[in-house]
Amino acid sequence: MSQLREQLIAAREASYALAKLSRVEKDAALTTLAAALLAAQDTILAANAHDVAAQVALGTAEALIDRLLLTHTRVASIAAGLNALADLPDPVGDVVREWDTPLGVHISQIRVPFGVVGIVYEARPGVTADAAGICLKSGNACVLRGSASAYTTNNAIVTALQEGLIQAGLPPYAIQLVAGDHLVTTELMQARGLVDVLIPRGGAGLINAVVAGATVPVIETGTGNCHLFVDASADQQLALTVALNAKTQRPSVCNALETMLVHRSIAPVFIPQLIAAMNAAGVTIHGDPAACAIDARIVPATEHEYVAEYLSLDLALAVVSDLDAAIAHIRRYGTGHSETIITQDEANALRFTTEVDAAAVLVNTSSRFVDGGEFGFGAEIGISTQKLHARGPMALPEMTTTKYVLVGSGQIRP
Amino acid sequence: MSQLREQLIAAREASYALAKLSRVEKDAALTTLAAALLAAQDTILAANAHDVAAQVALGTAEALIDRLLLTHTRVASIAAGLNALADLPDPVGDVVREWDTPLGVHISQIRVPFGVVGIVYEARPGVTADAAGICLKSGNACVLRGSASAYTTNNAIVTALQEGLIQAGLPPYAIQLVAGDHLVTTELMQARGLVDVLIPRGGAGLINAVVAGATVPVIETGTGNCHLFVDASADQQLALTVALNAKTQRPSVCNALETMLVHRSIAPVFIPQLIAAMNAAGVTIHGDPAACAIDARIVPATEHEYVAEYLSLDLALAVVSDLDAAIAHIRRYGTGHSETIITQDEANALRFTTEVDAAAVLVNTSSRFVDGGEFGFGAEIGISTQKLHARGPMALPEMTTTKYVLVGSGQIRP
Repeated sequence: MSQLREQLIAAREASYALAKLSRVEKDAALTTLAAALLAAQDTILAANAHDVAAQVALGTAEALIDRLLLTHTRVASIAAGLNALADLPDPVGDVVREWDTPLGVHISQIRVPFGVVGIVYEARPGVTADAAGICLKSGNACVLRGSASAYTTNNAIVTALQEGLIQAGLPPYAIQLVAGDHLVTTELMQARGLVDVLIPRGGAGLINAVVAGATVPVIETGTGNCHLFVDASADQQLALTVALNAKTQRPSVCNALETMLVHRSIAPVFIPQLIAAMNAAGVTIHGDPAACAIDARIVPATEHEYVAEYLSLDLALAVVSDLDAAIAHIRRYGTGHSETIITQDEANALRFTTEVDAAAVLVNTSSRFVDGGEFGFGAEIGISTQKLHARGPMALPEMTTTKYVLVGSGQIRP
Repeated sequence: MSQLREQLIAAREASYALAKLSRVEKDAALTTLAAALLAAQDTILAANAHDVAAQVALGTAEALIDRLLLTHTRVASIAAGLNALADLPDPVGDVVREWDTPLGVHISQIRVPFGVVGIVYEARPGVTADAAGICLKSGNACVLRGSASAYTTNNAIVTALQEGLIQAGLPPYAIQLVAGDHLVTTELMQARGLVDVLIPRGGAGLINAVVAGATVPVIETGTGNCHLFVDASADQQLALTVALNAKTQRPSVCNALETMLVHRSIAPVFIPQLIAAMNAAGVTIHGDPAACAIDARIVPATEHEYVAEYLSLDLALAVVSDLDAAIAHIRRYGTGHSETIITQDEANALRFTTEVDAAAVLVNTSSRFVDGGEFGFGAEIGISTQKLHARGPMALPEMTTTKYVLVGSGQIRP
């Protein structure tokens, strides 16, 4: 039996124990895990220094090394995240609906954990404790597959968390790290019956590899090529404020603005103001010929710039003839993450929110709000851009499935 | 561009039109489709006679030919199914939850159609109209891939339904049949971005092929190796009644009973009564050594008989030492469909329903109730044994996803 298979069987056993825990027991365990993480912080930081030194020696880009780097402050923040999970409601056991059949069988649909959740993710070691905590709170055992460059750090974090599990009287196999080469990742993706759900967290390359290779059910956390359409009736000052926020508040994330579409009737007036405001904020605008004809400060855009995310202080711009053209553009280029209309026309707002197919559609507000924390969910495992099971920010309830419980007194089917 | 790709692009366009329809429009269309089916019944029956003759010539088993065969009565029943869908509530537009954020952004989570649903299914041509109707009512375009042996029949049915769509003023591409060899099935399973959800309906071979080959999201409708555990405290007369119903009311379906587990403390008294009742109903009992030692009428069972569904008048039987052993047996051999306990001990009932991981867990009633119709759902596309999105009977709401709508007045993220 492979080492991974042994790990998954141990995870399944642990999942049976987790599924029975009360909220009080899980919250106490989370607090214990946070304390164990803090107690082990010198070991964790030493392990991290090892991983960071290896990447420095390889000449890895500074931004990637910063994502990998842990500090006392960052470890404290990871521990605080575990404590914060203890304050959130427990979805397990919630009754989704219940009713009696005509023959008197009582049916209830109850939230239950998935069982064993696999998570495949890229460099940031904060994800390790974060994902483990969300899985624990939702009653799931987790099997974590981080990147090789963070292995020593992740291993130190998981060892500390397992120490915490033992202190809390829980099976240490509830949180496990997967070691080995990419063949092990493939084995994890195809472990039908042993892994209930697989969640990839990372860039488009990682997600596509998991979707193509997995035979276990996957929840995709996809990319965000997000649009903002400024309608003819828009409050133009509001449009500028919202667009600036959506583009510049944090340009590297999936809910940041990537392309603006401007109604042609207001383009000659609005676009010069937009360029001024965006340029002042350090944003370069890449436009279609109609936009370029209005303002010489616009750089001509290639087709590819409407397809891909910039994730930087760059913004694609196109002039559209009407709402239909805006919707058609979004259908063609959008990735189904977050799409915005700025309008004072209620009928157009309704058409946009109905006809644009995305996890989130917004009217007169910033796509940066499409986030588990901003939604008030308290914790988020990612933002799903697929349509099955969970769409949009995924919080604790999205980490559960349901079970029908039928209680009768001898009823049989006629 | 392949023919399938053209079909899928046409389905996507049609899905935009369907997503906007009101309940009244969809119900009127369903009634029109039912009438179109009845109007075309001579053509459909002639097409079916062609398919049936081909299978007779090939020497196909009678039971399979019966599944393929249509009659005036069966066509009338298929049309009645479409009319019945018009009476069911429309899930699209339902508000799952809504709230205001501290900054005053109103967030609502709304039910919306998936878009394009692919369905891969085996011989029974009734599925064609059934699946198309469920997709239409839930606002989805559908692409149907039936088996080659029913192609002429399915084509006649889809042609009639498309005629009905045109009469109802809807795009005929909302319901399409896929033609071609198995390479087309593979293309359908891998049409990412064009197919939102793929639902296989059929035996384990079909489902495994789809799960292994698909890169689009899949909802599995799996097999049912269903157990019934008779606890020490069981009302034994009730146990006999429920077990007989679960085994014999319709042995060929996924929620039929396949294995009984009997607590050893009651086995010597209960098992002879069970054998008498089951034998009288034509059921052969295959038992483990402990059971065989109690009653000579029991045939020794092989390990494989605890693994696989019989789908016939056969029943596997094992004596277990206690509730824990029963749960362990179900964890080992169950397929996560429907699992039953017969007990008068409330603590044991609660432990069983909590610790057994299945789409449905039952206390003192028949697993034959685990069915969309019996649940009162009115229509069912299948019974999901996976944990993502839908688990158990899948009705109209399970054929939708959700979308978050955020409405603000210029709020930006601080």
